[in-house]
Amino acid sequence: MPAIAALRHELAIANRICAHEGVLDAFGHLSVRHPADPGRYLLARSRAPELVEPADIYEFTLDSEPVRPPAAQLYSERVIHGEIYKARPDVHAVCHHHCPAVLPYCITGEPLIPVYHLGAVIGAKVPFWDSQDEFGDTNLLVRTPQEGASLACALGRHNVVLMRRHGATVVGGDVRELVFRTIYLCRNAEYQTQGRLVGRIGALTPGEIEMAGSLHQQPNTVARAWEYWVMRLEKRGAIPPRARSARARAQARAKTRV
Amino acid sequence: MPAIAALRHELAIANRICAHEGVLDAFGHLSVRHPADPGRYLLARSRAPELVEPADIYEFTLDSEPVRPPAAQLYSERVIHGEIYKARPDVHAVCHHHCPAVLPYCITGEPLIPVYHLGAVIGAKVPFWDSQDEFGDTNLLVRTPQEGASLACALGRHNVVLMRRHGATVVGGDVRELVFRTIYLCRNAEYQTQGRLVGRIGALTPGEIEMAGSLHQQPNTVARAWEYWVMRLEKRGAIPPRARSARARAQARAKTRV
Amino acid sequence: MPAIAALRHELAIANRICAHEGVLDAFGHLSVRHPADPGRYLLARSRAPELVEPADIYEFTLDSEPVRPPAAQLYSERVIHGEIYKARPDVHAVCHHHCPAVLPYCITGEPLIPVYHLGAVIGAKVPFWDSQDEFGDTNLLVRTPQEGASLACALGRHNVVLMRRHGATVVGGDVRELVFRTIYLCRNAEYQTQGRLVGRIGALTPGEIEMAGSLHQQPNTVARAWEYWVMRLEKRGAIPPRARSARARAQARAKTRV
Amino acid sequence: MPAIAALRHELAIANRICAHEGVLDAFGHLSVRHPADPGRYLLARSRAPELVEPADIYEFTLDSEPVRPPAAQLYSERVIHGEIYKARPDVHAVCHHHCPAVLPYCITGEPLIPVYHLGAVIGAKVPFWDSQDEFGDTNLLVRTPQEGASLACALGRHNVVLMRRHGATVVGGDVRELVFRTIYLCRNAEYQTQGRLVGRIGALTPGEIEMAGSLHQQPNTVARAWEYWVMRLEKRGAIPPRARSARARAQARAKTRV
Repeated sequence: MPAIAALRHELAIANRICAHEGVLDAFGHLSVRHPADPGRYLLARSRAPELVEPADIYEFTLDSEPVRPPAAQLYSERVIHGEIYKARPDVHAVCHHHCPAVLPYCITGEPLIPVYHLGAVIGAKVPFWDSQDEFGDTNLLVRTPQEGASLACALGRHNVVLMRRHGATVVGGDVRELVFRTIYLCRNAEYQTQGRLVGRIGALTPGEIEMAGSLHQQPNTVARAWEYWVMRLEKRGAIPPRARSARARAQARAKTRV
Repeated sequence: MPAIAALRHELAIANRICAHEGVLDAFGHLSVRHPADPGRYLLARSRAPELVEPADIYEFTLDSEPVRPPAAQLYSERVIHGEIYKARPDVHAVCHHHCPAVLPYCITGEPLIPVYHLGAVIGAKVPFWDSQDEFGDTNLLVRTPQEGASLACALGRHNVVLMRRHGATVVGGDVRELVFRTIYLCRNAEYQTQGRLVGRIGALTPGEIEMAGSLHQQPNTVARAWEYWVMRLEKRGAIPPRARSARARAQARAKTRV
Repeated sequence: MPAIAALRHELAIANRICAHEGVLDAFGHLSVRHPADPGRYLLARSRAPELVEPADIYEFTLDSEPVRPPAAQLYSERVIHGEIYKARPDVHAVCHHHCPAVLPYCITGEPLIPVYHLGAVIGAKVPFWDSQDEFGDTNLLVRTPQEGASLACALGRHNVVLMRRHGATVVGGDVRELVFRTIYLCRNAEYQTQGRLVGRIGALTPGEIEMAGSLHQQPNTVARAWEYWVMRLEKRGAIPPRARSARARAQARAKTRV
Repeated sequence: MPAIAALRHELAIANRICAHEGVLDAFGHLSVRHPADPGRYLLARSRAPELVEPADIYEFTLDSEPVRPPAAQLYSERVIHGEIYKARPDVHAVCHHHCPAVLPYCITGEPLIPVYHLGAVIGAKVPFWDSQDEFGDTNLLVRTPQEGASLACALGRHNVVLMRRHGATVVGGDVRELVFRTIYLCRNAEYQTQGRLVGRIGALTPGEIEMAGSLHQQPNTVARAWEYWVMRLEKRGAIPPRARSARARAQARAKTRV
């Protein structure tokens, strides 16, 4: 399978993992930067993540225009992805979501902090972006390049940005690191909330955040979790089909004709 | 499939989606106004929503009398539907439920407010109906035309009405909009409660409610969620069977006889 | 199927429903009074409720002695059942459980009150039994006739009794009413707890409790919920097998021999 | 099946039960002391517990060195197991985990206490180990023999030790007792947290802890729960395959050659 087809398949799996693990429902989306052309990224057409398959994934410029005119409807918030890829050359994968555990922090503006070792992957600081600051009343979606650039600016050098009364956007060095960070962001938020019910909470020390954070982004740690999440999809028969390459499709057609 | 058969099938699916997504258990019900006759509506016989199939769906007048004498037992609270259809010509679908996330607000009388973008579909205000005000001690069900009319009056021009120590009733322009509003009402209530554990909560601004609310009632947004919920039913083998038309049934009988 | 075999099957289903709906895990048990002999009751041997089948169900005297010497181990707390049947001729089914939603009330001693219409089936008052009062330090199980009689005395004329740092015991007029009351006791407890997070809670009025309570114990209401719970078991392939009668077993053996 | 093969199979089942019952996700691990050589223990290679099968299980010295050079990657925290086996000859099984219900106590340092009869299996006191005390800033994992010995020292004569901002480690007399204690530790933590929402919490009396604790560690109690958890794995088709013995593998190879 050529590299780009494998990446589409991995991105479809990542969509389904995030849905299956309770991060995404009908909404939210994940993208990956094009491996050969840093000026492009891959993102599904407008579809619930649990249904995404490789054939649903389109190529976009960093201005979030589709490279080929699509037949399908597109996510209206894709500028989130394009503007972050413009501002952060080190970022190769982006997830925007509205996970139940994170919403209370988006609603109240209370800071989300890393409270346990796996939560260190969110980093020492999670900035908060308020669309009211620059844009006043909106429908709260991020739909113009200006809104996307403003969000990317609030994200800065960090790993996660909360969006007032809306959700969160997470970035990663690749698809698997992104999924890992997204899922453990949600677990960390859940434990932070539950911790408040029990006593006084606080963050890891700066040294712990740095050490535990870099440890949990190492490929072998991420690989253990990835194998687990993929197995859980497999058990439900939810691995997406592989898209056939143009060449394979042509061969299949030729065969049928004979 | 004739329009009315398709609508019965859609209503049966809507019943099952609301059950599958945790809004309904053994109780609660959804109806739709008759597309050809605004003086009638369609509603299942008394049955748990997750079991409803097209053949269970009967036709009622707006006085909530069955058009044809039924062989089966009927929901005792069907006046909720009839009286709202009388009072609100713009309403074409109604759901009455006791969703766990909403119950704390029915019990305490605390106001339910839209706290995030998808929650805007409940509207700026969710009125509270207290059966004690007009009827004193009752069994808390809405069973007389007077009780139904009183509830419809409390609903007024709004999208949702809470019912003291009982549940909620939600209205929509069609079945899919209704399901979308019902499910995101429950999510919004859950996040409002969780938000209180974390910090200080408040509503979207009036402008945000209007803009985000109308956005999330657009057919393409609702369609994305509907495809997702239907897929989840399909995965469990829970799509209801289609009712055969009278004509198809007659043909089938004829065939069998030959 | 003779009446007693049907009742065994119904009791096995009731065990599995309570497990499947989250009331029981590896522990807890349900019994039914013998329909022909009010001085006996039916209860499973010591086994997790989700596994109980008709062949696991034994007959006991009201002193909680097995009528025939059993080959299997028995529940050590069966006096709960026997002593309640002695004290309450109107009771025909008993469930003892440790449902997660109820435990916080058993731990703290805070009163459990009916906060919504379906919760009215628990009655106006849920007494609290503290084993320390009469027996001092114990292992908290109810294992002697004296402990069982003390619990039955605390239950009095009520529908439910909480047991300090242990669980709850629920009674009913028949198996289906018992299951209905048990499940809605748990829902009511969950909403009471969640209600406290949101605002000020209180009970239904005495008139509402009486009217809503008797309404929700009517056979047609209970039947709708029972059909729903059975269907959910069926979907998981979890309906217990029917025990064959002694006669059928003899015939089967004869057939095999031929 | 030889004893050691049966034990490997039981350990694989124990891994999967803890995953299936919500104690473990992609991380955490269980070990058992070697039945014939108390100076060795059995532990899986680095793999998510829900995937562990007998063939994944390796043998280690109490210095946590693999007895045979492994082809696979190993858990970096295996010193937790080795150092506890050194310090506690009575311990024959160890589980390290990050269960959601326990995390709030690891984050806040609030004491975890036995609040209900089944929770008595955690014992009267659950000590709290803070890696900062001796080691300052770390990545929070327990990876050096010194860290492992420090944790074992904090555990002392107790059944469970909490680890600051990390998780918990539980010990048992055998695999099944360990699984029972681990699962009811998590339930107890959940009820303690929920109890705080409802009222004032406190522990069982010392006499109750001793009596209820020893009761719930008796083989027949543990066996009832084990049968239940195994049945739940079976329903999902999740029982691990049996590893073939070296002899069986040799025979199979011989057969293939013929």
